[in-house]
Amino acid sequence: MRLSQFYLPTLKETPKEAEIASHRLMLRAGMVRQSSAGIYTWLPLGHRVLRRIEQIVREEQDHAGAQEMLMPTIQPAEVWRKSGRYDDYGPEMLRIIDRHERELLYGPTNEELITEIFAATVRSYRDLPKMLYHIQWKFRDEVRPRFGVMRGREFLMKDCYSFDLDYEGAVRSYRKMFVSYLRTFARMGLKAIPMEAATGPIGGDLSHEFIVLAPTGESAVFCDREVLDIDVLSEDVDYGDDGALGAVIDRFTRVYARTEEKHVAADFEKTVPEARRYEGRGIEVGQVFYFGKKYSTPMGAVVTGPDGQAVTVEMGSYGIGVSRLVGAIIEACHDDNGIIWPDAVAPFDVEIINLRPGDEACDAACMEAYAKLQSAGKDVLYDDRDERPGVKFADADLIGIPWRMVIGPRGIKDGKVELKRRDGTVADEVSLAVALDRLAAAARG
Amino acid sequence: MRLSQFYLPTLKETPKEAEIASHRLMLRAGMVRQSSAGIYTWLPLGHRVLRRIEQIVREEQDHAGAQEMLMPTIQPAEVWRKSGRYDDYGPEMLRIIDRHERELLYGPTNEELITEIFAATVRSYRDLPKMLYHIQWKFRDEVRPRFGVMRGREFLMKDCYSFDLDYEGAVRSYRKMFVSYLRTFARMGLKAIPMEAATGPIGGDLSHEFIVLAPTGESAVFCDREVLDIDVLSEDVDYGDDGALGAVIDRFTRVYARTEEKHVAADFEKTVPEARRYEGRGIEVGQVFYFGKKYSTPMGAVVTGPDGQAVTVEMGSYGIGVSRLVGAIIEACHDDNGIIWPDAVAPFDVEIINLRPGDEACDAACMEAYAKLQSAGKDVLYDDRDERPGVKFADADLIGIPWRMVIGPRGIKDGKVELKRRDGTVADEVSLAVALDRLAAAARG
Repeated sequence: MRLSQFYLPTLKETPKEAEIASHRLMLRAGMVRQSSAGIYTWLPLGHRVLRRIEQIVREEQDHAGAQEMLMPTIQPAEVWRKSGRYDDYGPEMLRIIDRHERELLYGPTNEELITEIFAATVRSYRDLPKMLYHIQWKFRDEVRPRFGVMRGREFLMKDCYSFDLDYEGAVRSYRKMFVSYLRTFARMGLKAIPMEAATGPIGGDLSHEFIVLAPTGESAVFCDREVLDIDVLSEDVDYGDDGALGAVIDRFTRVYARTEEKHVAADFEKTVPEARRYEGRGIEVGQVFYFGKKYSTPMGAVVTGPDGQAVTVEMGSYGIGVSRLVGAIIEACHDDNGIIWPDAVAPFDVEIINLRPGDEACDAACMEAYAKLQSAGKDVLYDDRDERPGVKFADADLIGIPWRMVIGPRGIKDGKVELKRRDGTVADEVSLAVALDRLAAAARG
Repeated sequence: MRLSQFYLPTLKETPKEAEIASHRLMLRAGMVRQSSAGIYTWLPLGHRVLRRIEQIVREEQDHAGAQEMLMPTIQPAEVWRKSGRYDDYGPEMLRIIDRHERELLYGPTNEELITEIFAATVRSYRDLPKMLYHIQWKFRDEVRPRFGVMRGREFLMKDCYSFDLDYEGAVRSYRKMFVSYLRTFARMGLKAIPMEAATGPIGGDLSHEFIVLAPTGESAVFCDREVLDIDVLSEDVDYGDDGALGAVIDRFTRVYARTEEKHVAADFEKTVPEARRYEGRGIEVGQVFYFGKKYSTPMGAVVTGPDGQAVTVEMGSYGIGVSRLVGAIIEACHDDNGIIWPDAVAPFDVEIINLRPGDEACDAACMEAYAKLQSAGKDVLYDDRDERPGVKFADADLIGIPWRMVIGPRGIKDGKVELKRRDGTVADEVSLAVALDRLAAAARG
């Protein structure tokens, strides 16, 4: 994409309504634009990141054996009456009356609807277990939307629901999702720590939140820093092997990591050496719940068991805040000058900066790099604008593409280009050919 | 995907509310399930098709130079007041009041919102032209939703908006979209005919609808059957070459093809030989509009021109009914036994039918085929269920995967499998190795 043609309305001023770094940077970098309180348009740069994150979530859900479907945004009030949550949910639920005076609502979550569909379509234990997910926009009418996409009203969420014949099966499903979440966040370059959590309005018996440490987080959290060093991506996982899943989970859960609601100061001090204690804040990016028959009982999600008896199914639900993750990643990955995208979620892989558009040698080298990197399957942003180098460098720092190739008249005369990483780990002067080889070999993460 | 594990709730009975083939078949094949009038859940099989269609639309929009973004589903009433459409739109607009008593609505289309965003962010002629699109759920509160996803209330639409400095630029953008629509529908295996159309509630000066001929269509249409033979995919198109775009469009527009509103019986009879006249019905799957300054004037979408003067931009909008296309394709591609998916949008490429699960030789051959086809990048559905062959064949006909490989004990003894196309063009007994080679070589379309 040529930057001269790309729709990228960056802002020079810091918008005064933005209280936290991710909100500020997303507005300044032209990633999003607010259309009403807590409701955003995703401009092309932001949309690219959103889709990258969504795709990682999808791949790891599929890998864990969940099947993708898509429930609508608008739900009938009836199904929420069956579970009893229609009245309980309060003013956060966006309630709607249609032209025929029927009561509808914009789904804030989907336990009711999926349970209704399951109950109407699945009859036998032979069809279990099932894990079904969708990635769909939700709406919660927050009284005070803030922090940009981190606490918006219309937000994109992945929610998965598991259906099992018994408690043991439900725990197996819970473990699959737990491990898939560890992999999902790690692939995005995030350290998301599973923490025992209160079960809250969804209800249930067992729950973990996945928390990214950040001073701007909403939750107070306590953990042993050792948890940050655990690696989950170096080996693949066999989701059919319950023991292997348990072993991965144990490595995390034996380390102290709790949210405020579950924190016990005495235990923390006893089990974690002082130097390793983290007491701070975190951003919740996912949550896994086991809640048994809370929905399946009132909504009649019953199958015939192997012995011919009716069995009410055991359920769990598993959410990831897809749009919220864009903000959370920026909170974890930025400096004073802008965003520092992890490779796997970056909107582009490489930015080429032409320091002197119109100079024949610069233009030719840039076009060669642009064409070759695209042929190598890279997403390339080419800053071909007629702007001063200072403006280009500042914009490049702001939007934070992981790799940068700077091509200017002086370097080109010596056959050199500058190859840099936005995170500061690489800054080399090399030939164009070497730079292209190194970029072609760089993994997406 | 093993069919024994796939969430595919097919129906044996034909649902009585379904009046047309696509609605009937989508319900029977377990593709969708209604949750409220005109609002559907996309089950895994239907969701796969929806995503395939969406991806073709996306690729062709990108190819034409449009940039993807994503506007929210919920819009503020204010922007619709600026254009004057808030009151005009009537009861089809789903109006919502939030907890702070602010007026919102579920977007039925996005001319207002995109124009507002454009007006706030683009200042100079140097940023033109721009074509911006999104693929997002819309809501129209139809008084009588019917025909399944063909006329639902919540539906997925791709809408693109063009912004140009002058009329000539706007016509260039119109032509780009026109040609990209021809390619988009052709890639899906559809014959979608561009027809001059009335401009309707969006207003404007120039419009074409893209119509798929089908007896169940909502529009009466008249055309020269010659238009069905025009090929648009055999050559690639250069979207920078306005003359080349014009030539492609001319091949279509010089042939008589009009909707009822624009039809002139005398012209039709004079220009089209009787044997080639089609007078029937059609399904609208896309529409392109040029409407000049209808929105840019009231909403202040103004840029500074090359001479420093303010210029109100010229606009067009371009819609494709993504979810509607699933129904339209089925209307065009089915027989009495079920769906016949065109390769490019099929939910799976190949279905393997094991005629005797439990038979060692059959199981081994099926597993070999399953693994090898997946390695070759194919999406494979493996019917490993413990069901009678008759049930399997009936289900396979119903869900309509393009290729089928039937493996049974008698054939395997002779080293043979049956390789069939759902459309009846292939039905061969060959060795497993030959079958795999042929499938590996088959294009997705």
